[in-house]
Amino acid sequence: MFVRNCWYVAGWDYDLPPGKVIARKIIGEPLALYRRQDGGVVAIEDRCCHRHAPLHLGEIEGDCIRCMYHGMKFDPSGRCVEVPGQDRVPPRAAVRSYPTVERDNWIWVWMGDAARADPELIPFSIGPGDPDWDMRPNSLLFNADYRLVIDNLLDFSHLTYVHRKTFGGDIFAYTKPEITRLERGMRIERWVRNVPALNFTQHIMQGRYDMHLDYSVLMPCVFVMRFKVFTAGTAVEGPSDGELLLDTWTCQSVVPVNAEQCVYYFSWGAPKAAGQETSNLLAKGIYQAFLEDKEMIEGQYANIKANPDARMIGIAHDAAVNQMRILMEHAIAAEKTGIAAE
Amino acid sequence: MFVRNCWYVAGWDYDLPPGKVIARKIIGEPLALYRRQDGGVVAIEDRCCHRHAPLHLGEIEGDCIRCMYHGMKFDPSGRCVEVPGQDRVPPRAAVRSYPTVERDNWIWVWMGDAARADPELIPFSIGPGDPDWDMRPNSLLFNADYRLVIDNLLDFSHLTYVHRKTFGGDIFAYTKPEITRLERGMRIERWVRNVPALNFTQHIMQGRYDMHLDYSVLMPCVFVMRFKVFTAGTAVEGPSDGELLLDTWTCQSVVPVNAEQCVYYFSWGAPKAAGQETSNLLAKGIYQAFLEDKEMIEGQYANIKANPDARMIGIAHDAAVNQMRILMEHAIAAEKTGIAAE
Amino acid sequence: MFVRNCWYVAGWDYDLPPGKVIARKIIGEPLALYRRQDGGVVAIEDRCCHRHAPLHLGEIEGDCIRCMYHGMKFDPSGRCVEVPGQDRVPPRAAVRSYPTVERDNWIWVWMGDAARADPELIPFSIGPGDPDWDMRPNSLLFNADYRLVIDNLLDFSHLTYVHRKTFGGDIFAYTKPEITRLERGMRIERWVRNVPALNFTQHIMQGRYDMHLDYSVLMPCVFVMRFKVFTAGTAVEGPSDGELLLDTWTCQSVVPVNAEQCVYYFSWGAPKAAGQETSNLLAKGIYQAFLEDKEMIEGQYANIKANPDARMIGIAHDAAVNQMRILMEHAIAAEKTGIAAE
Repeated sequence: MFVRNCWYVAGWDYDLPPGKVIARKIIGEPLALYRRQDGGVVAIEDRCCHRHAPLHLGEIEGDCIRCMYHGMKFDPSGRCVEVPGQDRVPPRAAVRSYPTVERDNWIWVWMGDAARADPELIPFSIGPGDPDWDMRPNSLLFNADYRLVIDNLLDFSHLTYVHRKTFGGDIFAYTKPEITRLERGMRIERWVRNVPALNFTQHIMQGRYDMHLDYSVLMPCVFVMRFKVFTAGTAVEGPSDGELLLDTWTCQSVVPVNAEQCVYYFSWGAPKAAGQETSNLLAKGIYQAFLEDKEMIEGQYANIKANPDARMIGIAHDAAVNQMRILMEHAIAAEKTGIAAE
Repeated sequence: MFVRNCWYVAGWDYDLPPGKVIARKIIGEPLALYRRQDGGVVAIEDRCCHRHAPLHLGEIEGDCIRCMYHGMKFDPSGRCVEVPGQDRVPPRAAVRSYPTVERDNWIWVWMGDAARADPELIPFSIGPGDPDWDMRPNSLLFNADYRLVIDNLLDFSHLTYVHRKTFGGDIFAYTKPEITRLERGMRIERWVRNVPALNFTQHIMQGRYDMHLDYSVLMPCVFVMRFKVFTAGTAVEGPSDGELLLDTWTCQSVVPVNAEQCVYYFSWGAPKAAGQETSNLLAKGIYQAFLEDKEMIEGQYANIKANPDARMIGIAHDAAVNQMRILMEHAIAAEKTGIAAE
Repeated sequence: MFVRNCWYVAGWDYDLPPGKVIARKIIGEPLALYRRQDGGVVAIEDRCCHRHAPLHLGEIEGDCIRCMYHGMKFDPSGRCVEVPGQDRVPPRAAVRSYPTVERDNWIWVWMGDAARADPELIPFSIGPGDPDWDMRPNSLLFNADYRLVIDNLLDFSHLTYVHRKTFGGDIFAYTKPEITRLERGMRIERWVRNVPALNFTQHIMQGRYDMHLDYSVLMPCVFVMRFKVFTAGTAVEGPSDGELLLDTWTCQSVVPVNAEQCVYYFSWGAPKAAGQETSNLLAKGIYQAFLEDKEMIEGQYANIKANPDARMIGIAHDAAVNQMRILMEHAIAAEKTGIAAE
């Protein structure tokens, strides 16, 4: 149920300060992460090849990590370079090392064939370190199959219901966006015109507005959206004209821990020029909204887990959800048969 | 392990105020319950037919309920009557609806073939709303196979041991009741003569007493008992003569959540004319006693679960237990082969 | 994965005061333990033969125990001697009784063929009740396969790493002990010369020391060590000469609850003549150190459980670990084929 040949987010950069070793589990595989002396991130199998002790309990020595059970030392490539008490290192003593890239304040780990780990495949996003945007990062654990969260992102009709307290907007359920299939995902765009502000902003925005939402969901699990709010009636031609009142980016990644859990990394922010209060409000709003998603999706997952073969009835809003599921199933099947997914 | 064609208690009526949706699981099936505008109880499958979201997170609209994931609306029969954003409702869009009856302050749900849901099959009981009796309702979750609780109710020799602190009475283990097989259960009756009061009442009853216990256990899981206490030696002919000091009813239902858990709904009460203090005492006594049962039965269930094939040695007190088990096995087998249980 | 024909520690003697019934699980089997009137320990199956109620909820009557569900009474041999309400005890009404011995303040239970329960097979140890030694007992639950704890004890190179804060001593990982195979285990002995004191004692011992460690690990799970510290350079011939600064015993037993958990019983102490402060310090040190082991071994076990077939790479320090594993596998295989393990 997982695409392997892709970049997964293993955390925000601030999760991994120099000198610290952290544990992560991605698509069921245990990882230990730490930084080399040059700051680069090492991601290795969190299981010593000797007696399977967890390497995240290890200690960093220069660019290497030492297992703190019996002292075997591994270099960033995963090769064992020292066995205390014996001169010779067994030739097969090694742990798996995973390619990593740090970009846009996310630590990306390639879980598949290392030879195919191309940083060009990392999706575009805007991180909390961006000079112009005040992105506020956060994360939540969902007790659910990660694909249910991807589904959720591909059908914004749920804003009307799940997020009636935070976002609201009856129009989301009664209109349809433009859906475009991309090479590795879906692009979804829509105008929502002459509506009240999102609920969590109505204490400061009491008028009528046009909103433009434009997002991509890329395999396996990255969501990036530009969301703009205009004075109603002014953005007649498209998102680049009109009286722009609020301009935001939100970047999100839904990372499968295993078949039953996922970590949701997300940020939302406005331009720094808009002042901190705007981004404070967005950060609070998205966190509340994602708690609403968490309750609904965890309940949905519990139902599916209890009765995995029960039939689902399709509706029109499922269009993008279904296309993305097919894309992912093709990619997973292609990896299994040894044929490249791209 | 469950009889389907029968009425199960889904809760006390006060568990379901108007405007609220509650979740229940009975014989492994998830239910969402709410009230129609006329107060009648709707019980439907707690799983939207679209993407399996839990309907107990939904919102009531008139007599209908709307799934708050993507907004599908269902009427009390479970039929989908609206899909936001599309004109046509898919013809098979529906969730299962279960027959319900509210009686004696219990909400009853029929888990089997709806065509056979005959309210006449609901057992007699006396509810907290009774004009003459001061019945005090309560409930407990047991981490055990519900049949172990039914067993427990069919053999009161355990009062001497499990309930030595609350009920006591050495005589229960050393005498036998009259056992009568009913069409759908067992009736058990006994006189216990010239004994001290039950332990939890001895601070106000220090004499010697005759007690009369007369109860029925009906498939799958209802227990109703009339319990009377007389001045010792006065009730020579039967429960209708003698110097009646305490007259009570207790109504109980043991509802399987699934194979491993059950909810125990119970009440005990005296006539209102006896004053509140009497029923206060009964309510406290039964709750303490059922905590004693819970500890014992959960320990028993843990043993059985760890070693389900270990042999049991029968004793004379098992007579009613064994007969009831056979009745239930026949009913379950009859349902499976499509032959009516009655 | 368990040797059956051996003595397992079921607890410290103070865990079982007269009149109390306690529950234990050893190699997956539930036991109820209590004391006869003469103080001797009875260990019986914690499952009544009637309806499988837990006997640890029972009550002691003289030398017998009564199941407090329906009152069946069992003598110390496990034979049912009374069924309340019937004259005849069913001939097969009995629970299993396990041989016990109390020695060195440990309660030992024989989990295998009772006919082979020879008290001579109980390993030597020194208990908290010893007249000369101030042994301080304690225990910890490990969520791990007990064999991983045995492995840990057979390779003290881990002192350098796991216990770097408490014990430390770089030399443990870089030197090797003398290993001798015993009939039912391993003996391991070593000198560590001209080193600082163990870390947790350095606030009172700032010099250089020679240390002598001499321990046996006996199947399935007993560890007994004499540990001595001398002024560096004085103990030239062996542990019996030299300027002895600290003389200690530690006795430990790792008892499998089931395949996934074990209870670690342990003590450490100095001669009473050395004063209480010394043994206070040892008790605190060993507890801290075993918390360090617990974290590492539980992490190791989680890795093994998640991926039981992953390969392990052997190193030189595994010598005693491997020999002990082979000894245990032979003993287990011999029991299965009906051939004596000894």
